[in-house]
Amino acid sequence: MTELGSMLPAPCTSDMAYPCNTTSINVVSLSLACSGLALLMAIFLTKKLRSYERGTPEMNKLCDKIKSGARAFLVTEYKYLTMFVFLVFAVLVIIYTLDPPSNLLSLADNPDRLDGIRAGGCFIGGALLSASAGWAGMSVATDANVRTTQAADKQGLSVALRVAFTGGAVMGFTVVGLGLAGLSFFFWLMTLNRSVGDLGGSEHAAARSLIAAVDSLASFGFGASSIALFARVAGGIYTKAADVGADLVGKVEMDIPEDDPRNPAVIADNVGDNVGDVAGMGADLFESFVGSIIAAATLANGNAVKVALPFWIAGAGIVASLFGFFAVSTKDGANQRQLMFALHKGVISSSVLVLAFSAVIVSQFFPGDQSAEGWKIFACIAIGLIAGILIGQATEYYTSYSFWPTQSITQAGVTGPATVIIQGLGIGMMSCVPPVLIIVATILGCNALSGDYGVAMAAVGMLSTLGVTLATDAYGPIADNAGGIAEMAELEERVRETTDALDALGNTTAATGKGFAIGSAVLTSLSLLTAFKDKAQVGVADIGDPVVLSGVLFGAMLPFLFAALTMLSVQKAAGAIIIEVRRQFATIDGLREGTAEADSDRCVAISTQSSVEEMILPGVYAVLSPLMAGLLIGPKCLTGMLGGAIASGMMLAIMMANAGGAWDNSKKYIEIEGACGGKGTTTHKACVVGDTVGDPFKDTSGPSLNILIKLMSMVSLTAAPIIRGWQDWQFWYWGLLPIGLCVIATILVHHYYWKNTQDIAAPIDDVIKDAPLAKDVETPAAEEETS
Amino acid sequence: MTELGSMLPAPCTSDMAYPCNTTSINVVSLSLACSGLALLMAIFLTKKLRSYERGTPEMNKLCDKIKSGARAFLVTEYKYLTMFVFLVFAVLVIIYTLDPPSNLLSLADNPDRLDGIRAGGCFIGGALLSASAGWAGMSVATDANVRTTQAADKQGLSVALRVAFTGGAVMGFTVVGLGLAGLSFFFWLMTLNRSVGDLGGSEHAAARSLIAAVDSLASFGFGASSIALFARVAGGIYTKAADVGADLVGKVEMDIPEDDPRNPAVIADNVGDNVGDVAGMGADLFESFVGSIIAAATLANGNAVKVALPFWIAGAGIVASLFGFFAVSTKDGANQRQLMFALHKGVISSSVLVLAFSAVIVSQFFPGDQSAEGWKIFACIAIGLIAGILIGQATEYYTSYSFWPTQSITQAGVTGPATVIIQGLGIGMMSCVPPVLIIVATILGCNALSGDYGVAMAAVGMLSTLGVTLATDAYGPIADNAGGIAEMAELEERVRETTDALDALGNTTAATGKGFAIGSAVLTSLSLLTAFKDKAQVGVADIGDPVVLSGVLFGAMLPFLFAALTMLSVQKAAGAIIIEVRRQFATIDGLREGTAEADSDRCVAISTQSSVEEMILPGVYAVLSPLMAGLLIGPKCLTGMLGGAIASGMMLAIMMANAGGAWDNSKKYIEIEGACGGKGTTTHKACVVGDTVGDPFKDTSGPSLNILIKLMSMVSLTAAPIIRGWQDWQFWYWGLLPIGLCVIATILVHHYYWKNTQDIAAPIDDVIKDAPLAKDVETPAAEEETS
Repeated sequence: MTELGSMLPAPCTSDMAYPCNTTSINVVSLSLACSGLALLMAIFLTKKLRSYERGTPEMNKLCDKIKSGARAFLVTEYKYLTMFVFLVFAVLVIIYTLDPPSNLLSLADNPDRLDGIRAGGCFIGGALLSASAGWAGMSVATDANVRTTQAADKQGLSVALRVAFTGGAVMGFTVVGLGLAGLSFFFWLMTLNRSVGDLGGSEHAAARSLIAAVDSLASFGFGASSIALFARVAGGIYTKAADVGADLVGKVEMDIPEDDPRNPAVIADNVGDNVGDVAGMGADLFESFVGSIIAAATLANGNAVKVALPFWIAGAGIVASLFGFFAVSTKDGANQRQLMFALHKGVISSSVLVLAFSAVIVSQFFPGDQSAEGWKIFACIAIGLIAGILIGQATEYYTSYSFWPTQSITQAGVTGPATVIIQGLGIGMMSCVPPVLIIVATILGCNALSGDYGVAMAAVGMLSTLGVTLATDAYGPIADNAGGIAEMAELEERVRETTDALDALGNTTAATGKGFAIGSAVLTSLSLLTAFKDKAQVGVADIGDPVVLSGVLFGAMLPFLFAALTMLSVQKAAGAIIIEVRRQFATIDGLREGTAEADSDRCVAISTQSSVEEMILPGVYAVLSPLMAGLLIGPKCLTGMLGGAIASGMMLAIMMANAGGAWDNSKKYIEIEGACGGKGTTTHKACVVGDTVGDPFKDTSGPSLNILIKLMSMVSLTAAPIIRGWQDWQFWYWGLLPIGLCVIATILVHHYYWKNTQDIAAPIDDVIKDAPLAKDVETPAAEEETS
Repeated sequence: MTELGSMLPAPCTSDMAYPCNTTSINVVSLSLACSGLALLMAIFLTKKLRSYERGTPEMNKLCDKIKSGARAFLVTEYKYLTMFVFLVFAVLVIIYTLDPPSNLLSLADNPDRLDGIRAGGCFIGGALLSASAGWAGMSVATDANVRTTQAADKQGLSVALRVAFTGGAVMGFTVVGLGLAGLSFFFWLMTLNRSVGDLGGSEHAAARSLIAAVDSLASFGFGASSIALFARVAGGIYTKAADVGADLVGKVEMDIPEDDPRNPAVIADNVGDNVGDVAGMGADLFESFVGSIIAAATLANGNAVKVALPFWIAGAGIVASLFGFFAVSTKDGANQRQLMFALHKGVISSSVLVLAFSAVIVSQFFPGDQSAEGWKIFACIAIGLIAGILIGQATEYYTSYSFWPTQSITQAGVTGPATVIIQGLGIGMMSCVPPVLIIVATILGCNALSGDYGVAMAAVGMLSTLGVTLATDAYGPIADNAGGIAEMAELEERVRETTDALDALGNTTAATGKGFAIGSAVLTSLSLLTAFKDKAQVGVADIGDPVVLSGVLFGAMLPFLFAALTMLSVQKAAGAIIIEVRRQFATIDGLREGTAEADSDRCVAISTQSSVEEMILPGVYAVLSPLMAGLLIGPKCLTGMLGGAIASGMMLAIMMANAGGAWDNSKKYIEIEGACGGKGTTTHKACVVGDTVGDPFKDTSGPSLNILIKLMSMVSLTAAPIIRGWQDWQFWYWGLLPIGLCVIATILVHHYYWKNTQDIAAPIDDVIKDAPLAKDVETPAAEEETS
């Protein structure tokens, strides 16, 4: 107890009247106002978006199919997640009612039994808002895609960009608006009705109240990250399974073009873009955004000014993003480079603005002789912002075909697919070097300036302009979808060319976006690790201690397990689609000739079912692993585990994202620039193999790893009060619980889902040799025909 | 100083007359005798091997070509390494003469200036013996290969196995003999003429002397690991570049069979097996063996009994291996399963024996009331031995085509090469789980039993039967080479079938061998990390400390960088071979028809040159990275770096080795068992792509990572006295030295080698399109024809 007493900040002195002794509502006043602004902006932009035309009835029909498929998927996914959320809610309420975390702050023996419902409520709030962000992203993307196609058809590139970018902006402002509003509201709620005891005397009452409130917020982050993980994994599996399935049967076996309406899986493929790249990304970045603020607020350790700062900076970032959005404007008939410049203008102007705002806030928050400390924190924010941009630049170097790395992959295609894979993996691994050096420099610099809190504020700075960076990021999938609709509706070739140009631009901005996502995930997780170590009273987690080292090894293994599970899931889910598409081509007469219609709903249903089934096990492992290490062995081992997981997860995430991006662009280098002989050569075919391998790398496993490391940190922080002060192996029998749950989940999933999936996988072989499935299913389909 | 005083062991008491107060020569008496026995055995087996026939003059000519190629490579490699060794020698002598490490043990101010020459001498000794082990392996393998072919031709499978296995055993006993003899001798030498001051009083004189002697041995390990790293990297690049080059032009472009004598690169390919798989592996396991003993002796911390124990256990292991070798006997006409059983019998009987010997040694070393401690250490040895076998079993499960994982890769081949790659990477990542769980259990168990020293003794136990396990491991490449000779000498088909059967058996034993290699590397590195932490007086390296965490991130990045460099090097070196082979086919008339002879010497020369060039940069980075972190930031950061490198290096090594092995066997599953339609199908072709990607995985990058983590730990331990007690950033300017050296090395390599290599890579493209190289070089060749 006394140990914690010494951790409390110095009480406010008379010369620090404001904002040191501020009320909790003041802490979040600006952030609530700014998040309201962001949500208003999102509504305004949605209205503006709806003023654009929706095109022909044929296009509308396709768009509605995509929309209903995406909705059906999210509804199914959320049904499963609701069970999960209520289960965790119940566990949190029971545990924290029995053993309220805020007890620690109280010298008197008056446990605050409300802690249980507080933690549970925050968890539900985080989960609900994260799910809403995903839903909103999906809704607006399925609204914007067809309008982008129509604009590309009737009004040209510049307007099409504006439509797609508006769609992206709706998503960007919704995510930051919901995130900051929710976090601010729950923070304020958590400060209410606190009876935090008398530790450290009455002058520390405010600090104690803040610490207790921020502690409860960890559950909010836990809720957000668990939804983000499931959404990314399920969405990622969905989009890649449908993509691979559609391509392998359609393009390769049936020799029909990509996105051809005759292909039964093509609607599912387009649904996948919306649920994976848009809804998944929305939930992902929602989580990053709130995670960075929670980490900083936790490390503020009850210092009112430091708790308020991340909220205020995030609020200022929203205002800066608004200005940034309006700075994006182009003349009609602008070329690709001018468009790119327009987007960059938006990001850079908002970065400059947020720095200016931060300077003002810091100068107000740290008056007089505290100003030195304030400017150090300001430097951390600036370092974070710059580091994010630098990582984006490095990512662009490794994944754009304007530079040597991606070109070398294309050249390796001359000697076949194997050398494309080796070169791509080599480039992917190599690309870990610059981001690691940048992040290490950021950590060391910010730590020297302002300690753990400085590192956390760097993450807040990096993500402060998320509103506008997410807009430039999210418009890519919208343009991609618009191209799909153009193809399916059989519009003129030039429409597809316009959307392809937009898509190519989107690939470049997506690289920057991934830089922010990975960099901020690592900084946030490191801050959460530090926060966990404090809360769990680990004391020292010495890396030379075998218990800690075991944790490091176990943790380093988890991202590999996770990436393996998700990649293998894509394979399995794709197998189901392949069989279904083959079955339809074999049984529906006239499908290949274009006289009969494909049953795309069945493909959508299969993708939905298998991706939701496949998300269970990775999700369960991710949530339970920290509990295994923490309960079985102890908090020291868990600290090591988090460190190992962050380190190996970071490398694997960068490697997979960049190798995937580079493979994609090595193929585009041939298709767009005609390198190495152009389309249709063996070199091109070799690069297509690389692109296919890269799909689950960059869209399923890679991005999930970001969330994995944050989720595990959030779970640990939430569970910290339970295992507080445990010695190694002290209560090992509790560890049998999560291990048992993992085993049961594995057996159940294997029994109910994998056994079937394996059956689905086996006949692929038979189908090729003697197509038994085709015959088996022919009878009902034949009846339908004759009727 | 007082801190170290408290680290000294309790002085010997009267009831511990022997072996507590043993002399240094007693410590190594058994190990010297046993290593002598091993070397005698190696000589005896070499004589026995030479009694087998060498076959036809044609076969002899081929064998001699392979031998001279392998020699030429090793001579070139060792020339470069000699410069490196003398450079490091000079640095060690200068630094440790100026600042003798044993000063720390002395309260009086009388520095022992001999420390410099001691460290330098040990370094040279380790390097020399490691190089000798590699040379011996290469010599015996190039002797045994042709004799195996002849035995397979004239005397059948059983005798051929005996010949190949005898070759492997020569290598096994040479490695353990040289390793233990060298280590024992240098240990004894290091105890001579010590003036170790009077820290802790006179009753601690013996302990001080032992600590100082063992400290100097770190340089022996450093010497061994640096040679091992260069040998593995250069050998690995050589063998895979020649393999890929020979296959891509020969099999794919020219449509001639594998190992066809018309292919100019086929001799280089066979040379590669000897320098990569045999000489490289010899240096690698030499290093593991001595590394584990050094780590345990260091952690014994001057306790004479504990210092002696690893030497004695290793000696006992040699005797056990001798028995194990003789236990390998088969009836004539034994089938594959009986052969496998015979090999297993050897390994298992020696494991049982070594346990029995260990029990006897422990009961003598820990008499009376110390016996409880002794039996705990015995349990650690047993745990290590069993863990090694279990990891081998897990590796076999993931890489043998008798089990689901490898079969699933073959099945994924039905949908093309991309799915083979995804499935293989997924299986490889998944295969990290069991070894990590086994190693974590080993660490936790041994630590609970006997602390850091227990973990180190587990590694010693795991490697104690190396003599016989290496024999079963090293015979694989010999059988592979024998098959190559059979093919090139155009012997009957059944000879190749016999050698293929041996080779297949070798693949399974190789899996077990890799388990030992990886498991022991991790345990040894962890022990070295702990030893480094003590020696550098790091105090606490808390993983929550941003400086340590930065180290972890930086360290986790290094294996990725290293794997990337080596994979890309294989690509570059293979490019050079491809161009040369194409040139020869284009310019040497009658080569394809078999009437003219290929210029295989040029291919050997090119492989040698490019692989030696490509080893420089990875080696320099590996040696200098620990110095960068340690000098620039400090020992705390370096501790974190080692932890991160061990964790991510272990995962990457397992993933690459197992994915590579599984891809290889997924192809063999089709070729040997006729799965998925058998040879020549598109499924087979897809699996060949996987196999090609797997080649640098399992034979170049994967095995190098084992050595990388040990080398970095050894460098750190050697440098520990320099950075002892430094605070973070205290002498940051010294860190500019290794950083500068890295930059200079990168620039030099880029300038002298890579610029050329890039030139070589570019024309591949041209060659295909308009074959300018063929025309360019045609003139001189055409002259030759007409003459």
